[in-house]
Amino acid sequence: MTASSDSNTFSPDTAGVNMMAWAEDLFPICRSLTGAGVRQTLDYLEERLPGLKRHSIASGEPVFDWQVPPEWNITKAYIEDEAGNRVVDFADNNLHVVGYSEPIDRRMSLAELQDHLHSLPERPDWIPYVTSYYARRWGFCLTDRKRSALTEQTYHVVIDSSLSEHGQLDYADYLIKGRCSKEILFSTYICHPSMANNELSGPILALALAQWLSSKDDLRYSYRFVFSPETIGAIVYLSRNLNTLQSNVLAGYILTCVGDERKYSFMPSRYGNTLADRAAKHCLHHYVGNYEAYSFLERGSDERQYCAPGIDLPVASVMRSKYWDYPEYHTSADNLSLITAKGLQGSFDVYGKIIDLLENNYFYTVQVLGEPQLGKRGLYPNTSKRGSANAVRNLTNVIAYADGSNDLIALADRVQLSANDVMAHLSPLLAEGLVSAVDGETNIRG
Amino acid sequence: MTASSDSNTFSPDTAGVNMMAWAEDLFPICRSLTGAGVRQTLDYLEERLPGLKRHSIASGEPVFDWQVPPEWNITKAYIEDEAGNRVVDFADNNLHVVGYSEPIDRRMSLAELQDHLHSLPERPDWIPYVTSYYARRWGFCLTDRKRSALTEQTYHVVIDSSLSEHGQLDYADYLIKGRCSKEILFSTYICHPSMANNELSGPILALALAQWLSSKDDLRYSYRFVFSPETIGAIVYLSRNLNTLQSNVLAGYILTCVGDERKYSFMPSRYGNTLADRAAKHCLHHYVGNYEAYSFLERGSDERQYCAPGIDLPVASVMRSKYWDYPEYHTSADNLSLITAKGLQGSFDVYGKIIDLLENNYFYTVQVLGEPQLGKRGLYPNTSKRGSANAVRNLTNVIAYADGSNDLIALADRVQLSANDVMAHLSPLLAEGLVSAVDGETNIRG
Amino acid sequence: MTASSDSNTFSPDTAGVNMMAWAEDLFPICRSLTGAGVRQTLDYLEERLPGLKRHSIASGEPVFDWQVPPEWNITKAYIEDEAGNRVVDFADNNLHVVGYSEPIDRRMSLAELQDHLHSLPERPDWIPYVTSYYARRWGFCLTDRKRSALTEQTYHVVIDSSLSEHGQLDYADYLIKGRCSKEILFSTYICHPSMANNELSGPILALALAQWLSSKDDLRYSYRFVFSPETIGAIVYLSRNLNTLQSNVLAGYILTCVGDERKYSFMPSRYGNTLADRAAKHCLHHYVGNYEAYSFLERGSDERQYCAPGIDLPVASVMRSKYWDYPEYHTSADNLSLITAKGLQGSFDVYGKIIDLLENNYFYTVQVLGEPQLGKRGLYPNTSKRGSANAVRNLTNVIAYADGSNDLIALADRVQLSANDVMAHLSPLLAEGLVSAVDGETNIRG
Repeated sequence: MTASSDSNTFSPDTAGVNMMAWAEDLFPICRSLTGAGVRQTLDYLEERLPGLKRHSIASGEPVFDWQVPPEWNITKAYIEDEAGNRVVDFADNNLHVVGYSEPIDRRMSLAELQDHLHSLPERPDWIPYVTSYYARRWGFCLTDRKRSALTEQTYHVVIDSSLSEHGQLDYADYLIKGRCSKEILFSTYICHPSMANNELSGPILALALAQWLSSKDDLRYSYRFVFSPETIGAIVYLSRNLNTLQSNVLAGYILTCVGDERKYSFMPSRYGNTLADRAAKHCLHHYVGNYEAYSFLERGSDERQYCAPGIDLPVASVMRSKYWDYPEYHTSADNLSLITAKGLQGSFDVYGKIIDLLENNYFYTVQVLGEPQLGKRGLYPNTSKRGSANAVRNLTNVIAYADGSNDLIALADRVQLSANDVMAHLSPLLAEGLVSAVDGETNIRG
Repeated sequence: MTASSDSNTFSPDTAGVNMMAWAEDLFPICRSLTGAGVRQTLDYLEERLPGLKRHSIASGEPVFDWQVPPEWNITKAYIEDEAGNRVVDFADNNLHVVGYSEPIDRRMSLAELQDHLHSLPERPDWIPYVTSYYARRWGFCLTDRKRSALTEQTYHVVIDSSLSEHGQLDYADYLIKGRCSKEILFSTYICHPSMANNELSGPILALALAQWLSSKDDLRYSYRFVFSPETIGAIVYLSRNLNTLQSNVLAGYILTCVGDERKYSFMPSRYGNTLADRAAKHCLHHYVGNYEAYSFLERGSDERQYCAPGIDLPVASVMRSKYWDYPEYHTSADNLSLITAKGLQGSFDVYGKIIDLLENNYFYTVQVLGEPQLGKRGLYPNTSKRGSANAVRNLTNVIAYADGSNDLIALADRVQLSANDVMAHLSPLLAEGLVSAVDGETNIRG
Repeated sequence: MTASSDSNTFSPDTAGVNMMAWAEDLFPICRSLTGAGVRQTLDYLEERLPGLKRHSIASGEPVFDWQVPPEWNITKAYIEDEAGNRVVDFADNNLHVVGYSEPIDRRMSLAELQDHLHSLPERPDWIPYVTSYYARRWGFCLTDRKRSALTEQTYHVVIDSSLSEHGQLDYADYLIKGRCSKEILFSTYICHPSMANNELSGPILALALAQWLSSKDDLRYSYRFVFSPETIGAIVYLSRNLNTLQSNVLAGYILTCVGDERKYSFMPSRYGNTLADRAAKHCLHHYVGNYEAYSFLERGSDERQYCAPGIDLPVASVMRSKYWDYPEYHTSADNLSLITAKGLQGSFDVYGKIIDLLENNYFYTVQVLGEPQLGKRGLYPNTSKRGSANAVRNLTNVIAYADGSNDLIALADRVQLSANDVMAHLSPLLAEGLVSAVDGETNIRG
């Protein structure tokens, strides 16, 4: 473990650097839906997030329309030529083996082997990432350059893996209690072997946000972090926590593909109109500017489960370069050189803005009839001359729409300011008691 | 009667050819609001649609704000010059006489005659179509070329017509019972003499649709066809069936101007937001592509009555070239050369798509929580690699919005597919019981 | 007083000329929030509007979040150089003194004096308008040309003003009773010294509208006119009449900046969706055409109070060149040469149209089922031929949407006509009893 990742106090300004260090530690681990790699990853997270709750479910358990798969573990795998050279070796890169490959130890011709090989002719130096979770197969992934160099001979193919029906699927969650029981949810996945943007950027951002929020001493909302394998893990988590989540979650986000510097992306919830969507779009618009707005029709991560009919959780996703839409996606080129401290810091900062916005997202209401007299409070220039009215326009606009019908996001949209700027105007008014903040959910004064 | 029109089994693929044959049979008949021509037309329809219900109402009967006009019949009409030549003869073309002309048998100067002549200077070879239903007049319509050739002399003017206060107005309807009593309505008119696009294309399309639907053995909805003179006929029909129609009609269409090949047109209902509008627009968008979307402000057929305040039926209209907007409209040039089997077939096909859509227009709801596991049902590629997720995107999108809140039209719009394509995805899911169809009207499972 | 302003009968066609004459009378008076100038102005209005109700409130009274300021009066003010020349004299232009200047009589150096001088370097020949209502100061405003010419010497500075804590703030209102107690409100302000567009155009338009409406013998609505100092006067008026206004006012307008010819402007209410907004926008669109649509974020007059949270009155504003957005605003150049009889007449006419529209703004409902038979009432051409249907299209469209769900504004928008044109179509139908008018507010037949 590196020293940089063991700091006890969390500084949001250096989150990106911490995250890069964690990514380096976690990158080599061979994760999959189940198995030792997942547990090793959760151990690492737990060290940095005391209080992380570990959970497991037995292979074979039915969950919603699915069944928990057998537990997969692997110790070694290679293809050896007649001269005893390991032409492909899992020890070099854990992408070399198709995920959930069944064991094999057999000699075969190149022709027979070819049916089990996967490569990318258009990217001859990249190893593709392939899995076969729900149909029993075995296979190797390799660069197309190496595959093209294979000659007609007998190869010794070894995969020393196990698929146990008596295994388990591991996952974890972490809850930070705020003043109210309503929750903001962050869900990320821990089931991909050595890939950086998709997937490591997700769990390390979750870890950074969880550390940061844990260091705060007065949170309005509770915050829930979920670390589970993609799809089946989300389904397990939902099947075991559905009532709680449906009762409590006000907004949630899938953390994935948040590590590169190329752009920002937004994936909405099923109808795109939840608090999660509104808060994220406000922050992307005001604090990022340009970003790619995707349709829910283009989704591909755990919003597929969180936003499914009958689940209906308000879950969206702010990403950098989205899965599918960057060339290195699901290949060996999605490595530690693709993500940067700066890219990760950018994602951390946007989610930080979203959290700030949600924490401040009250229905503000001015407490006097007519405009308040700002002058006597030192908030208005007390000489009127040409142009001076413009100087307080934003302040008076904030007051005009602080009518109890707009939450902070709607108020900011009305007055064409960022939520940050609105809060700067509201702060002295809140301090003066000229404006009060009402919780839209519970109608209890904030 | 031609052989082609007497076929007992209906093939939707050759509907256009059948319709053209019917048009040829019906074209020569001199129809008007009332009289022998209307009955002769209904006889023809009844032969091909056993079970057609004939109705009549006596001249003079009050209906809503109107009164049924006297029955008009005509045997002959001509203008004879001094040499005994019939310069205009109703026997040549039944457009030559102004509809509802009172009888006359008198000699007069050209100057006096001119007040009773109608022609089109800008279209010198076309005879215009003119009527005077509610003010007693007589008149002749002729080509402007012929009118210009008239010389100063005494003409013998003969119209052998009758306007009987003891007559009747004839109309008919035809009901096909489906599994539920809710109805889809098609209304068309039978009051124009020899004109093809406006009007014959309407009743022959109604006949084709009625034959086709009668040949089906399992219809969800009931289908009502109305054949009546325009305006006063629709008013009579509504005055006698208003409660039934308001209780039962889910969507209706005026069939008119559906015979040429030039384009497709759409006339919405009064507010443009009924099921009839939504279904028609979906089909025009997905199965036709380009079409002319008119405003209700430009309406001119029986949607004027069906969509009137207090009637408020959900009635729209899909047309080819709309009345008023093609040069031959209401002239002798709107003849059998303007409509084609292909043009009529196109209209039949679009209405067929609308009917298919309505029959399938349930609120689909996925029956499991979270995404269903498509792999175990053979609906998902069981090896995940780069790009394979795209292959099932449409299927998973259909499932995501099959949440019980969208009818088929809304679901198709959400996933940016045609209703046909959505149904192709839904069919195996419905067969598996993974999705159920709920009737939005009655909340009874479909 | 000029003869032109004493006419007993009001002619709307010459309103602009009358208004110009009133402006000339009122221009020289030195108005402020309080004091003799306000009372002199109200005297003038009362002479022309018998029944004007005068009100006052004592200095120091708390109103909402404010306190009524002391009463300010001024008799003379000047700056005299060592040679005894009055280089600046309030007698020349009442803008020369900062509004609410405290008294002073002292000799001082130019350096000390400079801190109390206001000029406009970018407009060297204009005197700026400056006030300091709520902080005790004194000051002079002058052209920058004159200021630059001041030399180092000792000046004698005299302001003979008084700020009385035992004074009062004056305002007035005027109510014209209509058939129903619901009100249309016009509010204008009387607190600016010699400036024409902002402010005199407002009170003289209010006077013209009040005279005109008083001369009418059958008004549907009641009309309320308020003349008060800006901001504090509106707050006083609201604090004393809030329940009445909230119960009765259906639509209201701030009358300000209505005198020049340059353009028309529109300031909406807080959410821009009240009857006041809808009526004004309809009239601006149909009777003016081009106009500048401002956002409520750019407001600056008494809609700040009337539309404040908790007040929530439906108040908008139709202006010519809006305050802040014309160069002469709040300077001596906003004088009688900026406003014209034609400019004022234009504003009078638009407000006249708004009033006509509101008076006619019923929910019209056709009284027969199906389309009425227009022919028997002489409203439809009784010969049908090509194109004749177009001639009555607007009439039938008006009937189609006279379905009881649209008020006049919505109906006019639906049929793409002005309210005037709709009323021209509706008049014979109302006379025939074919259409009835229902009051949307009270559901009593109009």
